[in-house]
Amino acid sequence: MKSLLTFLFSFCLFFAAVAKDGYELWLDYRPLENANLKTEVDRLFSGVFFFGQSPTYEIIRKELEISSQQMIEKAPVFSMERLAKTQVWMGTREELSQVLGLDQQVQIRELGEDGYWRGPIDFQGKTYYAIVGNRPVGVLYGVFDWLKSIQTETFNPKTEKSDSPKVKLRMLNHWDNLDRTVERGYAGFSIWDWHKLPGYIDPRYIDYARANASLGINAVSLTNVNANARILTTDFMKKAKVLADLFRPYGIKVFLTARFSAPMEIGGLKTADPLDPAVSEFWKKKTDEMYSFIPDFGGYLVKANSEGQPGPHEYQRNHAEGANVLADALAPHGGILIWRAFVYSHEIDEDRHKQANLEFEPLDGKFRDNVIIQVKNGAIDFMPREPFHPLFGAVKNTNLGMEFQITQEYLGQATQLVYLAPMWEEVLRSQTYRPTPNSTVAGIIDGTDSGQKLTLMAGVSNIGTDRNWTGHLFGQANWFAFGRQAWDPYLTSAEVAEEWIKMTFGQKPEALVKIKEIMLESREAAVNYMTPLGLHHIMGRSHHYGPAPWVEGGRADWTSLYYHLADSLGIGFDRTGSGSNAIAQYAPEIAKAWSDPNQIPEKYLLWFHHLPWDFKLKSGKTLWEGIGLHYDLGVKTARKMEADWKSLEADLDSEQFDHVRQLLAIQVQEAEWWRNACLLYFQTFANRPFPAEIEKPEGDLEYYKSLDFPTAPGIRPRW
Amino acid sequence: MKSLLTFLFSFCLFFAAVAKDGYELWLDYRPLENANLKTEVDRLFSGVFFFGQSPTYEIIRKELEISSQQMIEKAPVFSMERLAKTQVWMGTREELSQVLGLDQQVQIRELGEDGYWRGPIDFQGKTYYAIVGNRPVGVLYGVFDWLKSIQTETFNPKTEKSDSPKVKLRMLNHWDNLDRTVERGYAGFSIWDWHKLPGYIDPRYIDYARANASLGINAVSLTNVNANARILTTDFMKKAKVLADLFRPYGIKVFLTARFSAPMEIGGLKTADPLDPAVSEFWKKKTDEMYSFIPDFGGYLVKANSEGQPGPHEYQRNHAEGANVLADALAPHGGILIWRAFVYSHEIDEDRHKQANLEFEPLDGKFRDNVIIQVKNGAIDFMPREPFHPLFGAVKNTNLGMEFQITQEYLGQATQLVYLAPMWEEVLRSQTYRPTPNSTVAGIIDGTDSGQKLTLMAGVSNIGTDRNWTGHLFGQANWFAFGRQAWDPYLTSAEVAEEWIKMTFGQKPEALVKIKEIMLESREAAVNYMTPLGLHHIMGRSHHYGPAPWVEGGRADWTSLYYHLADSLGIGFDRTGSGSNAIAQYAPEIAKAWSDPNQIPEKYLLWFHHLPWDFKLKSGKTLWEGIGLHYDLGVKTARKMEADWKSLEADLDSEQFDHVRQLLAIQVQEAEWWRNACLLYFQTFANRPFPAEIEKPEGDLEYYKSLDFPTAPGIRPRW
Repeated sequence: MKSLLTFLFSFCLFFAAVAKDGYELWLDYRPLENANLKTEVDRLFSGVFFFGQSPTYEIIRKELEISSQQMIEKAPVFSMERLAKTQVWMGTREELSQVLGLDQQVQIRELGEDGYWRGPIDFQGKTYYAIVGNRPVGVLYGVFDWLKSIQTETFNPKTEKSDSPKVKLRMLNHWDNLDRTVERGYAGFSIWDWHKLPGYIDPRYIDYARANASLGINAVSLTNVNANARILTTDFMKKAKVLADLFRPYGIKVFLTARFSAPMEIGGLKTADPLDPAVSEFWKKKTDEMYSFIPDFGGYLVKANSEGQPGPHEYQRNHAEGANVLADALAPHGGILIWRAFVYSHEIDEDRHKQANLEFEPLDGKFRDNVIIQVKNGAIDFMPREPFHPLFGAVKNTNLGMEFQITQEYLGQATQLVYLAPMWEEVLRSQTYRPTPNSTVAGIIDGTDSGQKLTLMAGVSNIGTDRNWTGHLFGQANWFAFGRQAWDPYLTSAEVAEEWIKMTFGQKPEALVKIKEIMLESREAAVNYMTPLGLHHIMGRSHHYGPAPWVEGGRADWTSLYYHLADSLGIGFDRTGSGSNAIAQYAPEIAKAWSDPNQIPEKYLLWFHHLPWDFKLKSGKTLWEGIGLHYDLGVKTARKMEADWKSLEADLDSEQFDHVRQLLAIQVQEAEWWRNACLLYFQTFANRPFPAEIEKPEGDLEYYKSLDFPTAPGIRPRW
Repeated sequence: MKSLLTFLFSFCLFFAAVAKDGYELWLDYRPLENANLKTEVDRLFSGVFFFGQSPTYEIIRKELEISSQQMIEKAPVFSMERLAKTQVWMGTREELSQVLGLDQQVQIRELGEDGYWRGPIDFQGKTYYAIVGNRPVGVLYGVFDWLKSIQTETFNPKTEKSDSPKVKLRMLNHWDNLDRTVERGYAGFSIWDWHKLPGYIDPRYIDYARANASLGINAVSLTNVNANARILTTDFMKKAKVLADLFRPYGIKVFLTARFSAPMEIGGLKTADPLDPAVSEFWKKKTDEMYSFIPDFGGYLVKANSEGQPGPHEYQRNHAEGANVLADALAPHGGILIWRAFVYSHEIDEDRHKQANLEFEPLDGKFRDNVIIQVKNGAIDFMPREPFHPLFGAVKNTNLGMEFQITQEYLGQATQLVYLAPMWEEVLRSQTYRPTPNSTVAGIIDGTDSGQKLTLMAGVSNIGTDRNWTGHLFGQANWFAFGRQAWDPYLTSAEVAEEWIKMTFGQKPEALVKIKEIMLESREAAVNYMTPLGLHHIMGRSHHYGPAPWVEGGRADWTSLYYHLADSLGIGFDRTGSGSNAIAQYAPEIAKAWSDPNQIPEKYLLWFHHLPWDFKLKSGKTLWEGIGLHYDLGVKTARKMEADWKSLEADLDSEQFDHVRQLLAIQVQEAEWWRNACLLYFQTFANRPFPAEIEKPEGDLEYYKSLDFPTAPGIRPRW
C-alpha cells in the first residue's frame, strides 16, 4: 500500500511538473501545506450552497472544483440544503436577504454592482461563511478574492472583508489585427481565430475570460485601434457575438474598434463626415444591428486623425463632432464611446508633446456624456519613463480614462523582465495640482478629484498565442498588476508583486524576497540602460527593438534626433519657456518648479531641458558622467537580477526556472547593447572620456549602427 | 488511507483530464489496463541497461521515464550492471557484441544505419530482452517501436522483430517564413521563433524532435521553398545551428531552402548565373561556412523558376546547371541538393500538366549524384485526387524523391477531418509500367524498381503553434501517417490508422472501429463534395478556401475555367491526343487505356477527357447526373462522419470529443457549400435539372459567388 501511494504521488508530481508551462497563470492552485488552513478549507469546501441560479454560479462551481482538487485533493460538495450541511453561502444580497435578513451583518448595498462582501454570518446559532455581491459577478469577484487569500495563506474565516472597484471600466485593449498579427505583440499571435469563428470555440477563450474575471477586468476591446472596418460587417458581428456570449457570465463586456471611415468602406457612402445625415444614419443602423447580436455590447474604441488614421479633420470637423456621432448611435443602448487622445500630426506644433492638449482643451465640455477620452499615461508614447500627461487636470468637463501599455513595446519587448507596476504607480500618484491642489492622476481617473462618474482604466494587452499567454513568464505579472491597479489605483506595486509571486511560485520565503526584489528593481534598471535622466524615443525605427539614437530622416517626430538633440554643447529637449514651452501645459506649480534644471526631479531632466555636457548633477558629477553612470548601473542591475534568479534554482520548478534564466541572459546582453550603443553614440557629440568608474563600452559604433532586425516581432510581417 | 488513495486517484485523473489538449500527440501513454501486459512491462522496466554512452541514450532514458510513469505509474530502473539486475539491454551491435558476441542471435548488420532489432536473447542461462541498432538512433527507433507495441497492446516479449526504413531521407518540408507566417499553414504560426534564437530555446523544439523521431522522420527543411536569402546569412546560421544541435541526438538533420538569387541578395554579386565563377565561389564559401556551424548540415532545398521564383532560366541555363552549382558546393561535405520539379511558367506549353516532364526528361542523367529531384505526387498541385506524376518512370538516371502535402491546402484546410494516407497509398501503389512492367511509384521512390540509392520522401508540414500542433486533432494522423509511410511506403492506410487511433484514443474497440471508418472514408468524401470524377482546381483564388469554379481572369492556369472547361456541351480537360496530349507522357500502357473514356478509371475521367453532359457512366447515369450524385454523396458521408463521432461521446475525453465535434459541424456546412456552389454553377452550363435522388442544392449562385474570406489562413497577411 505504501509503495502504491508512492507511485501515485510520483505520478501526480509528474503531471504537476509537466503542467508548469505557465498556461495556468496565477490560478495555478497548489496543494496547501499549512495544516490548519487545509483543515479549515476542507471544512468550508465540504458544503457550498448557492441561493440562486445564474450562469455565473456555474463558473464559480467550476472554479471551486479546480481549486479544491488542486489545493486539498478532493472535490467540493455543493450542498442542496442551505442549513444543516452547508458551510459556505453564496449569492446576491437580494437572494440571501429574502431568506435571512442579513442586512445587519452584511454591508454590501453601497458597494455597487461589482462589489462583494465575504465573512462569517451567524444564523440560528450556527456560523456560516458567506460570499455576497449585489450581482452574481460580485459573488464571482468575492470568490476569486477568497481563493486568492487561501492561495496566499492570508485567509481568516473569522474576519470579514468587503471591496469594490474604484474604476468602472477596467479594460484590456487588444491591438489584434483580423489576420491574427498583433501590433506590438510579443507573445505570438492573436488568440482570436476569426476564421474559425463562429463555428469553433477555442477553449482558450474561456480560460482568457476566467483569468480576466479573477482580476476584475470587465471590458475588452478585441481589435486593433488601427482598425479594419470589416469588423463591423454582419459576418464579423456574428463572430464577435460568440465571444460576447462566452464572456458575459464572467462579467466582461465586448468593445470593438470603429474605423472612422467605415461609412465609406462598408457603408457605400462617399463621405464619413460626422455631420452628414447619411453618416449619422449609417452609425445608428450599424450600431442597432450590433446590439441585435450583442445586447450588452460595450461600445466603440476609436483612434482618429492620428498616425494616418482617418478622422473628422478630413471634413474640417473637430474631435468632439467626430466622437459625438458615434456616441449618439450608442446612447440609446447604453453604449460607451471611447475616443483616444493620442492624436498628432506634424503640422500642428513644433513639439509632439503639446498636441493632445492643443486639440482637446478647447473641446472641454463638448463631448457627450457617454464619451470617454482615453489618454496615454504620458504625452509622447509609453516611453520607459514619462512625466504624466498634461491633459490630466487640464480639462474639467470631460471624462478622462487612462491608457497604460501592458505590452512591452518600449520596455524590453519579448525578451526582458520588466515589472511595469512601479511605472504605473508613479504615474497614478503624480500630483496634478488641478482641479484641486491635492489632486492626483489616480484621483482624476477614479472620479474622486475630477467628479467624473464614467471612469476607465485601459491597458494595451500583452496577450498572445504563446502557451504562457504573455511570452515572458513575468509578462503575466504585468497583466495581473494592470488588473489589480485598475480595480484599485492606490495599491502599491510591491503588494501586488507579492500577491502575484505567491500565486505563481508558491510560498517559499527566500524565493518571495528575491523575486520581489528582482521585480521591483527591474523597471528602474530598464530606464537606466535605455533612457536615463529623461532621455526618450531613441529606439530602433519601426520595430522599436533595441537602441538607435542615430535614427534620422523621414518624418521628424519619428526620429531619435528630434528627441535627444545632442550636439557638441549638450543634450536634451528644451520644453521650457525658452523652448517649446510644453511645460506650460501643466499646472503653474509644476511648470514653475520643473522649469528650473536644479529643481526638476533629475529623472525628468532631459525631457524638459537641453543642458551642457558639464552641467552639474546633484551627485556632483557632470551630466556626461551621470549619463554614463546610469547606463552602467542599468547593466549591473540586469546582471544582478540574473544572478539572483540563478540562485533560486532549487526553489523553483525547472521549466519555469529555465525559461526565465534563458531570457535573463538575453536581457543582460540587450542591456549591454543599449549601454554600449548609446554611450558610444553620445560620445561622438560629448567628445569626452568615459567616467573611470564604469565599464568601458565595448565595440564599434558602426557595428551597432549596422545591426538589422528583420524578424523583430510586433509589426506586420513585411516579407 | 483508502480515502487518501481516492483523493490521489482523482487528483491524477484531474491532471490527466486537463492534459488532453492534444499536445502529447500519439505519445500520450495511458495507464495499461491489460494485467498481463502490465506485469510484463513492469518486469522489463525494472532493469534497463545501456551498453554504451550517447546523447541519444539520454533521450531514450527520458522517454522511458515518461512512458513508464504514465503506463505503469512508476519510474523505470536504469541498471548499473548488465547481468544480475537487468531485464532489458540496449545498445548498438558493436557495443553489445564486444561483450556478448550476439551475432548468432541478432540479425542486424544488413539493416543499415537506421535499422533495429528487438527481441529475446539468451545468455548464460537467462533470457534478456534486447533492443539493438547499428547506431544509437537505431536503438531509439527500436525503443519507440517497442513502446508503440506496448501502447497498442501487441507486445510479445518472446518474439523478435527487426525493421529498417525503405527510404533514406524521410523529411518534413516546413513552408515557414522567417516572420513566422506559414504559407498554407492552418495550425497557427511557425513554431520557429527566429527572433528569440539563438538565445532562447523553446521547449517545443525538443518535443517536435521527439515526435518526429518516434516516426523515424530524419530530416527537416525549416524554411519556406519560396525562400528568403537571409536564412543563409551568418546571423541565421547561428540560429539554425541551435536547432541542428537540438535535433542531432534525435537522428534529425537540418536542411534549409536556398534562394537561387542569394548571390545577388546577400553576396553582393551582380548575377546568380550558375556558370559564373563568382557565383560558384559564393555557393562554395557560403556552404563551407554553413558546415562550420552545422557539421552534419543536410543540404539545400530549392524551388527555382516556378511561380516567380528566381532560377537558372534567367541566365539561359537549365535546371541541371542550376542544381549542380549548389550540389558541387555541398558534395565535399556529404550534403544533398534537393531540387523541386514543381516548375512551370505559362509560356512553355498550353497545359501546365506537361511542364515538369518537358523540362526534366531531357536532363535525365545530367544531375550530380547528390541531387534529388523532388516531385509532387501529381502534375498539377496536390489536388484532392490526381493521377500520379508522369515523371515517375519517365527518367532512368535521375534520383526522384516524392513530395506529398501533409498540410491540407486543398483538402479542408483548418476545419476538415480528411485522413490523407489513403490518397498517398493510392499514389504509391500506382503502376507506372516503367522502368519495368511491374514498377510502381513506391518502387521508384524506394529504389527497388529504379535502382536509385539516394531516396527521399518529403511531406509539406502541417505543424504550427496551435497547442495540438496541427490545428485539427486529426491533422496529427496525417503527420503520423506520413512518417509511417515514409519509413515503409507499402504500409496500408488502414493499419496506420489503427496504430494512430490506439495511440491517441486508447483501446476501446467500438471507438476504434468507428474512428477508423470515419478516417478511411474521409478522403473519398472530400473528393466527392469537392472535385469528383477527375475535376480539379476549382477552389477559391489565392487562399484556396472553399469552392469557386467561377474563378477567371488573370494568369490562365491559376483560374478554375482553365481546368474544368465547362460549356453547354460538356465538361473536362481533354489531355488525350485530341487535346493537350499530356496523357502521352505516361507509359504507353496507360496512355492507351486512359485515352478511352470508357476504359479510364472514372475517378480520373474529367482529368483527361472533355465529355458531353449526357455521356453515359458505368452506373448508367449521365455524366451530369453522376456529378450531382457524387457531390451529394460527399455531403451525406460528411454527415455520417459527424453522426458517428457524436455517438462516441461516452468513450472519449470530453475536450478531444468537443474539439472534433465542433469541427465536424463546420465540415458538414462546408461540404454543403461545396456541393451547392458547384452544382448551381455547373447547372448554368448543363442546363439540366438536378437528379431526383439528390438533395436539391440550396441557395443562390450569386450569393456563393459574393462570399469573401479575408481571414482565410495560410497566406501572408494582407492587412
